Order: sequence, then C-alpha cells, then structure tokens
Amino acid sequence: MRFTSETSSDGVSEQIFTLGEIPGVLWTPEGAAGTRPLVLMGHGGGQHKKAPGIVARARRLVAECDFAVAAVDVPGHGDRPKDEEYDRIATENQARVAAGEELAPLIAGFQALVARRTVPEWRAVLDTVQGLAYVGAGPVGYWGVSLGCGLGVPFVAAEPRVRAAVLGLGGAQASAETAARITVPVEFLLQWDDERVPRAEGLALFDALASDEKTLHANPGKHGEIPAFELDSMLRFFTRHLG
Amino acid sequence: MRFTSETSSDGVSEQIFTLGEIPGVLWTPEGAAGTRPLVLMGHGGGQHKKAPGIVARARRLVAECDFAVAAVDVPGHGDRPKDEEYDRIATENQARVAAGEELAPLIAGFQALVARRTVPEWRAVLDTVQGLAYVGAGPVGYWGVSLGCGLGVPFVAAEPRVRAAVLGLGGAQASAETAARITVPVEFLLQWDDERVPRAEGLALFDALASDEKTLHANPGKHGEIPAFELDSMLRFFTRHLG
Repeated sequence: MRFTSETSSDGVSEQIFTLGEIPGVLWTPEGAAGTRPLVLMGHGGGQHKKAPGIVARARRLVAECDFAVAAVDVPGHGDRPKDEEYDRIATENQARVAAGEELAPLIAGFQALVARRTVPEWRAVLDTVQGLAYVGAGPVGYWGVSLGCGLGVPFVAAEPRVRAAVLGLGGAQASAETAARITVPVEFLLQWDDERVPRAEGLALFDALASDEKTLHANPGKHGEIPAFELDSMLRFFTRHLG
Repeated sequence: MRFTSETSSDGVSEQIFTLGEIPGVLWTPEGAAGTRPLVLMGHGGGQHKKAPGIVARARRLVAECDFAVAAVDVPGHGDRPKDEEYDRIATENQARVAAGEELAPLIAGFQALVARRTVPEWRAVLDTVQGLAYVGAGPVGYWGVSLGCGLGVPFVAAEPRVRAAVLGLGGAQASAETAARITVPVEFLLQWDDERVPRAEGLALFDALASDEKTLHANPGKHGEIPAFELDSMLRFFTRHLG
C-alpha cells in the first residue's frame, strides 16, 4: 500500500493510496489512534472513489461516528485505465438493446463479470486497511447502491468480516441468487420511480436477502434522487450495528 | 372536557379525560407551559387508548421531544360501550368470510363506516386539546397502524392541521381513494410477511398517497411484529416535521 497524498479538513483526514493497481482513498478521524469500525463504499456506474455522494457520506461517518471509510475505483472507472474487454461488452450490449433485447439481464451479466475482479480486490483492500494501527480489525460495514449494489451483493455474501450493509437501486435479475446468501442486517434503498431498475425487480431483490433484519426504505423519485434524510438513516444504521 | 385522573412519572404527566362520550388520555411533559406539537394516536382493532404500543410511543414523544400526545378509544373499544351495529356487522362479516367471501373488502367497508364517526370525534378532540394553554395550537401529527391506519387515512385527508403522519399495516382496498387526497409527509410501515394485509395491498396503499415526501419502511415479520428501531425512526420523523 502506497500513500500518494494526505489532506485534512474539519477533523477528517483523507489519504489517497494505491494497492497494487487499485487506486483508493481512506478517510479517518484526524489524529486517529487505535481500532475503529471501517465502512467500505462502492461507487456507482460511471462514477469513481471520490464521487460527491461517496465523499459526503464518508466525511459524515468519520466526523460523526469516528469510523474509518475506504473507497476504491472499480476497474475501468476513475483513475484506472480503460478496460478493453468491458468497453467491448458495453458496446455490444448497447447494440443488443438497440436490437430489442432486454437491458436487465445484460447488466446482470456484466456486473457478475466485474464482480469476479472486485470481490478479491475489495477483500485485499480490507486486509491492508485493517492492518493500519489507526483502523485495525474492528467491525466492517459496506455501503453501495446501483453498480455499488450489483458489486456489493457478491462482496457482502463472500466476506464474513462485513457485519452490516446498505444496498439498493439494484434488481433481482442481477443479484437474487447471491443475495440469498446474505444474512447480515441490510438497509435497502429503493427509488419508487426508478427509471433504470423496475420497481418489482428492486422489491424482489429485497425479498431475496436472507437476513433476519433487513429494512426496505422506498422513496418517491428517480434512480439518482435518494432523499437527504436517508444519509442520516445510514449513519444510524451503521452506528447501531458497528458502533 | 372533563379530567378524571392525573398521574405523573419520569417527567411525563398522564391525564385521563372524557370529551362528551369519548374517553381519552393526554400525555404532556410534567409542568408543561406554552404551545407544543401535538401527536394524535389511533389504536389498533380490539385495542384501546392505553394499549402498550400506544403508551410506549407516547411517553417517548413527550419525554424526548417535549411534545403532547393524545389517544382516544375508538367506538366499541376500551372504555366505550359495545356498539350493537358494529357487533352485528362483525358477526355478519365472519359468516361471509366463512362462506368464502374475501376479507379485505369487508374490512374496508367496516372501517369506512367507523371512520364516519371517528373523523369528527378526533377533530373535536384536537379542538379541545389545543385549547389547553400547555398544548396550544402548534403543529399536529398523526400516528396509527392497522385499524389506526384505516381510520387515520380519512382523518389525515380531512384535517388540515395534520402536518405529518405515520401510517401502515393497511391496504389499498380500504383506503386508496382517500389516500390520494393526502399530501403531507408520511412514513408508511409495512410488514413484509403480514398475515392480514397482502403485501401488494400495502404497497398499493403507499403508492396511492399523493405526498411528495413519503417513505416506505418495510421489515420482515408478521402484522404485529414492527421492529423496535421503527419507534426511534418515528421520533425522528415527527421531530423533523413538527419540531
């Protein structure tokens, strides 16, 4: 793990790092010492590790809950090189949709492909970040919606260190089978008027989770319009389960 | 309005009252003076104004938010005399269900009948309680699930003083048309494995609400198994909208 920059503001330290070929960012309380809960955040499609929605949530988790938060670029996103295979599949999928094929199964297939790389990458990031003395091996949470849900479901299902997850804006076609292996508490966000994920698909993914404690928060609005009060709810959810 | 008893514990004053033929209870902060938000709570079927779920929520709203809370017995419930017409209809409905009729439309018809009495009763309770110097004409909220939702939907739709409502465990067959007249923020509770209200009926009632801000909280479990963390969520919801 190589740190390439460190800045600090409002009590929150932000360190940019690379781990092998993975560019990442770690937020911790300024002057942190000792073990604390760690939340890994997965960004959305076309976004990156420092997308505004990630940064806003990360800073509040650090400032208000004293947690550590890490986010990394998904292959083909942010500071990572373009991925020729992914680009080719994306172009093919566009052509198939234009020719009348259904979008959801194509997205599902693509996310499953990417997850085969991100699950081991994210596990390696956990290993390394938890090795830092000011993070340590505390309880781990995961937050990710949209692509961050599509990649998050297989990650949460595979990684026993994750004790609670916020997921959402994803559908059953992509993730139901894997979701049935998730048993930790989940807060699941669904946008009632999502133009990308059919409502029934989102409800079916919530239904598929095997967790005893899972709570669906559905709000009016489109895919990108999660209301601000859900950020407060996320803080409380992680505090309850990791704090 | 006639007060028949007053007790106080842990900073919460509890006054039993009657308003005409309506038995009620009012919880306020001990030694309260001046105007404050008021939440009216509607109890479930077969329950009453001091059912444990009502008392627990009321005491926390008073102790933690400094609100006033009122609850009254629905006709035929609690300290009110048996209602021969309601009893007759209930018996008839049982026979009709035994003969193969669908339950939901029968419940819908019954709740609409009872609401014709409770809406004006509850409005009279608001008038009177808001006339007390230590409650006053502050913002009003409504909380009610199950029967408290069936009767609450027409009340919230009819009463412009209500600025926010927690509803749930109710279905569209009973309330969709009236719900389409509700425009205030609503937190809507749905039990994913509700044995009385079909899941699709609950989702359709949430869908029918005309509120710009409405949030569906769905949790695993049966009709009576709302998780404890939803009580915390209710406190924050009312604080956000009435506080």
